[in-house]
Amino acid sequence: MLGICYYPEHWAESQWAQDAKEMRELRLTYVRIAEFAWSRLEPTAGNYTFEWLDRAIDTLAAEGLKVIMCTPTATPPRWLVEQYPDMLAVDVNTGLVRGFGSRRHYDFSSEDYRREAMRISAVLAERYGTHPAIVGWQTDNELACHDTTPSASDSALAAFQRWCEARYGSIETLNEAWGNVFWSMEYPSFDSIDVPYFAVTEANPSHSLAFRRFSSDQVIKFHDEMVDIIRQHAPGRFVTHNFIPMSDTQTDNYALARNLDFASFDNYPLGRTDLFFAGADTAQFKRYMRTGHPDFSSYYFDQTRGLCQQNFWIMEQQPGPVNWAVHNPRPEPGMIALWSWVAFAHGADTVCYFRWRQAAFAQEQMHAGLKRVDNSPSAAYPEVQQVKAELDKLNIELNDPLHYRVAMVSTTTNQWVSEIEQQGQSYHHEKVEFEYYHALRLLGLNVAFVSPDHSLQDFDLVVVPTMPIISDTFIANCKATNATVVFGPRSGAKTEEFQYPRNLGPGKLQSLMPIKVLSVETLREDISETLHFEGETFHSNRWREELGVEENTEVMAQYENGKPAVVRHNNLVYVATLGCVDFTKSLLGKLAAEQGITTFILPEDVRTAERGDYRFLFNYAGEPVRIDGFEDKEFIVGSNELSAYGYAITKR
Amino acid sequence: MLGICYYPEHWAESQWAQDAKEMRELRLTYVRIAEFAWSRLEPTAGNYTFEWLDRAIDTLAAEGLKVIMCTPTATPPRWLVEQYPDMLAVDVNTGLVRGFGSRRHYDFSSEDYRREAMRISAVLAERYGTHPAIVGWQTDNELACHDTTPSASDSALAAFQRWCEARYGSIETLNEAWGNVFWSMEYPSFDSIDVPYFAVTEANPSHSLAFRRFSSDQVIKFHDEMVDIIRQHAPGRFVTHNFIPMSDTQTDNYALARNLDFASFDNYPLGRTDLFFAGADTAQFKRYMRTGHPDFSSYYFDQTRGLCQQNFWIMEQQPGPVNWAVHNPRPEPGMIALWSWVAFAHGADTVCYFRWRQAAFAQEQMHAGLKRVDNSPSAAYPEVQQVKAELDKLNIELNDPLHYRVAMVSTTTNQWVSEIEQQGQSYHHEKVEFEYYHALRLLGLNVAFVSPDHSLQDFDLVVVPTMPIISDTFIANCKATNATVVFGPRSGAKTEEFQYPRNLGPGKLQSLMPIKVLSVETLREDISETLHFEGETFHSNRWREELGVEENTEVMAQYENGKPAVVRHNNLVYVATLGCVDFTKSLLGKLAAEQGITTFILPEDVRTAERGDYRFLFNYAGEPVRIDGFEDKEFIVGSNELSAYGYAITKR
Amino acid sequence: MLGICYYPEHWAESQWAQDAKEMRELRLTYVRIAEFAWSRLEPTAGNYTFEWLDRAIDTLAAEGLKVIMCTPTATPPRWLVEQYPDMLAVDVNTGLVRGFGSRRHYDFSSEDYRREAMRISAVLAERYGTHPAIVGWQTDNELACHDTTPSASDSALAAFQRWCEARYGSIETLNEAWGNVFWSMEYPSFDSIDVPYFAVTEANPSHSLAFRRFSSDQVIKFHDEMVDIIRQHAPGRFVTHNFIPMSDTQTDNYALARNLDFASFDNYPLGRTDLFFAGADTAQFKRYMRTGHPDFSSYYFDQTRGLCQQNFWIMEQQPGPVNWAVHNPRPEPGMIALWSWVAFAHGADTVCYFRWRQAAFAQEQMHAGLKRVDNSPSAAYPEVQQVKAELDKLNIELNDPLHYRVAMVSTTTNQWVSEIEQQGQSYHHEKVEFEYYHALRLLGLNVAFVSPDHSLQDFDLVVVPTMPIISDTFIANCKATNATVVFGPRSGAKTEEFQYPRNLGPGKLQSLMPIKVLSVETLREDISETLHFEGETFHSNRWREELGVEENTEVMAQYENGKPAVVRHNNLVYVATLGCVDFTKSLLGKLAAEQGITTFILPEDVRTAERGDYRFLFNYAGEPVRIDGFEDKEFIVGSNELSAYGYAITKR
Repeated sequence: MLGICYYPEHWAESQWAQDAKEMRELRLTYVRIAEFAWSRLEPTAGNYTFEWLDRAIDTLAAEGLKVIMCTPTATPPRWLVEQYPDMLAVDVNTGLVRGFGSRRHYDFSSEDYRREAMRISAVLAERYGTHPAIVGWQTDNELACHDTTPSASDSALAAFQRWCEARYGSIETLNEAWGNVFWSMEYPSFDSIDVPYFAVTEANPSHSLAFRRFSSDQVIKFHDEMVDIIRQHAPGRFVTHNFIPMSDTQTDNYALARNLDFASFDNYPLGRTDLFFAGADTAQFKRYMRTGHPDFSSYYFDQTRGLCQQNFWIMEQQPGPVNWAVHNPRPEPGMIALWSWVAFAHGADTVCYFRWRQAAFAQEQMHAGLKRVDNSPSAAYPEVQQVKAELDKLNIELNDPLHYRVAMVSTTTNQWVSEIEQQGQSYHHEKVEFEYYHALRLLGLNVAFVSPDHSLQDFDLVVVPTMPIISDTFIANCKATNATVVFGPRSGAKTEEFQYPRNLGPGKLQSLMPIKVLSVETLREDISETLHFEGETFHSNRWREELGVEENTEVMAQYENGKPAVVRHNNLVYVATLGCVDFTKSLLGKLAAEQGITTFILPEDVRTAERGDYRFLFNYAGEPVRIDGFEDKEFIVGSNELSAYGYAITKR
Repeated sequence: MLGICYYPEHWAESQWAQDAKEMRELRLTYVRIAEFAWSRLEPTAGNYTFEWLDRAIDTLAAEGLKVIMCTPTATPPRWLVEQYPDMLAVDVNTGLVRGFGSRRHYDFSSEDYRREAMRISAVLAERYGTHPAIVGWQTDNELACHDTTPSASDSALAAFQRWCEARYGSIETLNEAWGNVFWSMEYPSFDSIDVPYFAVTEANPSHSLAFRRFSSDQVIKFHDEMVDIIRQHAPGRFVTHNFIPMSDTQTDNYALARNLDFASFDNYPLGRTDLFFAGADTAQFKRYMRTGHPDFSSYYFDQTRGLCQQNFWIMEQQPGPVNWAVHNPRPEPGMIALWSWVAFAHGADTVCYFRWRQAAFAQEQMHAGLKRVDNSPSAAYPEVQQVKAELDKLNIELNDPLHYRVAMVSTTTNQWVSEIEQQGQSYHHEKVEFEYYHALRLLGLNVAFVSPDHSLQDFDLVVVPTMPIISDTFIANCKATNATVVFGPRSGAKTEEFQYPRNLGPGKLQSLMPIKVLSVETLREDISETLHFEGETFHSNRWREELGVEENTEVMAQYENGKPAVVRHNNLVYVATLGCVDFTKSLLGKLAAEQGITTFILPEDVRTAERGDYRFLFNYAGEPVRIDGFEDKEFIVGSNELSAYGYAITKR
Repeated sequence: MLGICYYPEHWAESQWAQDAKEMRELRLTYVRIAEFAWSRLEPTAGNYTFEWLDRAIDTLAAEGLKVIMCTPTATPPRWLVEQYPDMLAVDVNTGLVRGFGSRRHYDFSSEDYRREAMRISAVLAERYGTHPAIVGWQTDNELACHDTTPSASDSALAAFQRWCEARYGSIETLNEAWGNVFWSMEYPSFDSIDVPYFAVTEANPSHSLAFRRFSSDQVIKFHDEMVDIIRQHAPGRFVTHNFIPMSDTQTDNYALARNLDFASFDNYPLGRTDLFFAGADTAQFKRYMRTGHPDFSSYYFDQTRGLCQQNFWIMEQQPGPVNWAVHNPRPEPGMIALWSWVAFAHGADTVCYFRWRQAAFAQEQMHAGLKRVDNSPSAAYPEVQQVKAELDKLNIELNDPLHYRVAMVSTTTNQWVSEIEQQGQSYHHEKVEFEYYHALRLLGLNVAFVSPDHSLQDFDLVVVPTMPIISDTFIANCKATNATVVFGPRSGAKTEEFQYPRNLGPGKLQSLMPIKVLSVETLREDISETLHFEGETFHSNRWREELGVEENTEVMAQYENGKPAVVRHNNLVYVATLGCVDFTKSLLGKLAAEQGITTFILPEDVRTAERGDYRFLFNYAGEPVRIDGFEDKEFIVGSNELSAYGYAITKR
């Protein structure tokens, strides 16, 4: 189904009815409202002015539209900041208070703000919880966006000290866990603990990791309380949250999502591609600047689906040029429809576009909408009509299950470790994970993202691009599966408290395979050594581990000096270096084939995905392309001749 | 005429007479003094010690030199800072107080400093206002240099709140004007308004624009009061100010100059070229590193002339290597003379060199002078002698009018908008304007800079490289002219309060031509699409607007997809994208030809300008060049065979 | 001899005896301990817990190991910071307090900290001064590391004001010395002087230089007091300090070392190469990324030897990948041994490896040791065994004198001036000095570093890559030598107080040679002009001075325009520009030959050095290489066929 983000408070009330009518005519199902409206809902302390919102909901409901209501806590009003100046966070880089004047100006550790946020949430939930037009709720908006998870405020410091006390029990335990004897960093008491910023040189990584865990916990605690309040007053309504890319939250997203009915994602393929591929050369950059990288949206879709292991929503879908990337190109014609279908193919049940009409003022006035400021339909409008018409043709249950034989295991500590102790500037956790994902997608494989706590028994190939801190549960899950499990470098490289494993890397993985990481080197991004695999030569670069292996360990690939680079023991494969995409694709292709998993060799810019009874084909290239091997398939949408930026849907 | 900047307080009094004698022998007319001398004029509060200045003036006057007196307010003394710590500004990026120890350490919003600055100005003006040797005054020095226009001090905040109150009347009006309903940014009262810095993410652009307007007004208010004080006590003397490049002031320079007799400019071609072309490749950079870009000085000269629509002064002319650019090369031999003549050709009545003798101490000791520290003449000295001899040969009134058929319209809001809402990192307002100017100069055209308030009736071709915020006056001026008026992209893209026009871009321009900007995309600098014009192929890049046009609108150039890129309606031309220089030159060349304006196709590094009865030719190349078509002209200086870095002057 | 850095407090006491036994078996002589152990020596104020240290020393002594004891003042414990919050320094860039949580969190100007640091030093020295196992002391650790020399604290400001009072006597003298009349920067009293940071634009360079001198003096004062305390209680024991690269201390290292028995150096060839050559292209960077640049370690070794004009120690030698550079590659096999021998060849008497066993926790857990975390020997271990075996074969007194005919004169003010007044961004003092050093090493020459106060009579060729501020002593030393003395550009360019010499550059050098620097230009790094020398063409770049010379001055090299670039007068040579390495090598080769100094033309990656009766040959290349001209030499280690990363030792 399709939906829209709508801000009635931005427009004259006289326009609402016409807007609602047009939404219905576009056959939208859902309308999301109220997420930034606090100053209009409570213009001064305790003075609630919900009447306009009542009328807005009624206007939408009158056209049969279903409403998703949001808590407005991402944008506390000015008067609240005056009342509780301590609610503002403190920047961990500059030490400056992060003030009023945009959004997300609150500290997750402020008791005052937490209380006020829950109050407004409760008031809203009480009033609208059982409203017949309201089918679900969105909590806050893009939690942690703008790097708002960490704060160096007094509130955060005090809460961190109590968090440490709860985690470690005694200061001696903390000092031991962090190795504070190093550089005489031992704390005499919990009250003397600092935030891990503003030291003369880098802080103890254990200290930094503890602060990341704490900061993540604060976000989750804040969010859980809000979910509880909504559930209390809004029985039978779903509760979701619109996530930003997982690595941007600095939060354990699996934990953040645990009380939600399903996760939602805000999808901005061009903006994200512009930032992620900023260093690409001209030809590379130009190739995908108006389509997004073919694997970039689905990378986040699959992660989002993994959060609750449920089909998900796109709560915000880019409908044209945006305003916030370094450069903001226009999508190629057809991309709005293509992106929508990629979302459905990867498990979206609903796609909501952001936003109905482009704003005429303030920060996002250069952000496209389905309608322009003058109310004319933008280029995206007919593409939305097209998607709706095609959805009708499918005539299927969209919450049909997805088909996965391949899983990727990820956890937030991967990111935390690699950011806290980068060791080589060319090592970026997310790029490493994306490279593995990209290789799997080039092989035409559906990829399930799962947390380390999730059973691996239903998969045939499990990829762990990296996992420095490994839990006992995950070891047990590995033992219990017959899948081939592939580990990338740095797996098991750290203990729970960010120490070096006394048995060397890969630490706990040594209980599964008899190898040791003897040393690690990191290289500059532009420098590669050769890597030998299956008689071919590939590149080893950025991160390279020297392995100690037993004599009879199977060596699958070798470094330039003949030493083992990829080894296998039983169903476990350990890759001791980062390699080029061709290598990763060859390795995973071989392992998939051994497990009897069918791979597809498709043109370079074509992707495929399966869902329910359907197979989807997407062409990210600017030229038409013919797909071989689909001649006898029944096409519901399109054909095996994909147009430029086109797609097709067949029966599986 | 020629002049010099002189600091008697830097040298032993015993040297003054010799210096004055040599200045006369060099046939200088003017000497500028006293601009940084506050600590010597008032060593402690109220203790005036003007006697040395009296003697310095007398010494200069004794040689027939005319004196320009400066107010010393750019360098308040240490004791004043101790007396009024609140006079210091606060850095808007770091929140740190901008302390004593260099110059410009004052906040334009400090009431204490304003009062003190006017006091010392009044005392000076009273004492020297009618001194027979003093022919004119310079206010302060390079107002706004070192990014001193904005401040985040308490004084600035309080003044901004009052400024908002005066502009908007009610807080409801302000909230409406800024669109503060977006993100619940509504302010409950004027006293709750913040400076638009230190927020969690970017501030509301309307808020930022208001603060820029306010900050500009503070500079102007400060300056106007000083001009009034001088005029009160110094009847018959001119008052001027030495401007830095217009974009560096963050101030409405037209307003700042409105009470002056004429504007002055501080001209540093090499330093400015080094900064402006920092990203150029080796060959490009090397080509002009010792000459300055051929259009870079005149670009500022023409702007300076436009401020008061009067011939202007060069108050500081670079005489050799300077100390403040990233790299500081030596000018090629002859460049000091060439730059001086470029200034005269573009409307300078006087060129003053900075400085008489290189300083032997403090921050600028690596900045060349006409004389070296050991009093030997530097390389510039004989070039100044040459310029003076050539000036004699012309035997003309230097305040002769200039001849303009082409105007460029510019306003500070262009810069403010493009800095506040860049939308694409490759869009730089000043580079866009400079590209248009460069194209006009390659066509050999004199260019008048005018403000949007200026009548366009006397011109045949008017170029508006961009003007996001358009006034009704400017629309009326466009309607009243028969000139071809060319608008670059983003014109009319914003309302007065930085909102998106409800009728879409180009906003108010729609009253002149029936087009709409349907969408905008920005591209990375290294990426171009093709642009079709007059059967040739050019580049479209960085900023690209999609136009909606009526069926019968003349399409002059088309995008790669055949859609309109340049359209014409009556005498108005709208260019919807940035293009390569060749395109801009071709387009403007065609439009000029249609208006019967003669263009010159000169060698690439040769420029020409007209003034009074004379035509000037300048060769920025390191090789001699012969100019065709001037065989029968009468040459007053040089010939049609220009030497390397040479110039020639003919009768028109 | 060989040694090791050991942290007993990081390991279970049960492991100490085994560690000591293995150290003995590796035939290490020295063990350095206790440098960061304050929190374990005094866990709360005045509560000393030395017993564990007693036992650790006893355990080491029982195996015949000699102990170097350190003062633990680089890591004051948390309780001390709580007691004396003013002991923390303030960052001169951000104004933020530099807090607890890593190391070096103290201000050299804090009276409280100074007193406490001397107290703990005295307590330690009293207790262990005459301990028979303790043969020497190391003060603090890497003084000034992490940019800790300057501080903008109130303590530093107050001390700076008193320092100024002592240096200048009257505020009038200071104002005159600094040229504060410029920009009215005159201070009314010493109490009104600021730190030279946080001003609106750059501070007066004289002010900045004074603050650098002051900051350096504070480090030296702190250190001298500590040395005195140790000497008082530890008769007959040596006192040394482990220096970081000289340019990183921001301190006058000659003065800092003056009370030491010898200087020590912490040698990290790969980390330092990674940082120093960060801008190199792929091929250049890859070439030395696992060996370090062939001249980079010896560059610092020769400087370290120069500090006390004594053979020196390597207190910390990189044993594998480190953790702190941008990228951290593994050394090529054999490099640990090669680096050790380079140190011995250049005057090291002892090489200590950092550290015995890789730390399992905290900031440096990715820093290799001789043993891995699991106690297995790392790749470096057998190389240390090899070095020890080879040391035995030499059977020589390692404190044999070195043989120098070439000296390089350097002083910290070179660096201070070039950092304070860069004039061209491509001018880096240390790169300039390194280029000269590199050229001398390519010629196979041993290079003695000496301070300007050191006699030059024992040398035949003296190279002064730059020396903006020249003392009268140095002028006298130049007059007293028959050596050829080569000066690089900018020599004599400043007075003692950072003014421009009234007689122009090269200032005081004009008493030795009749030349004047008429002007200076700086160019971007990628831009060169030609330089003519001995009939060949080279490059002149970055810094170029125009010289005024007398008619009969010998011009050795000319600029592209024929003007003098290198001139000679008597035994003095002045090089007015920076040139390419080939030029510098050709020039110095010619001058060496004229003095009868034998140069060696060796393969590009081979270096040689002499010490005592031995000549050393080192091959930094990955291929074996045969050295001609050594066929009849007696080889103690290796042969004239050097293996990849191999070395050889012959009788001289």
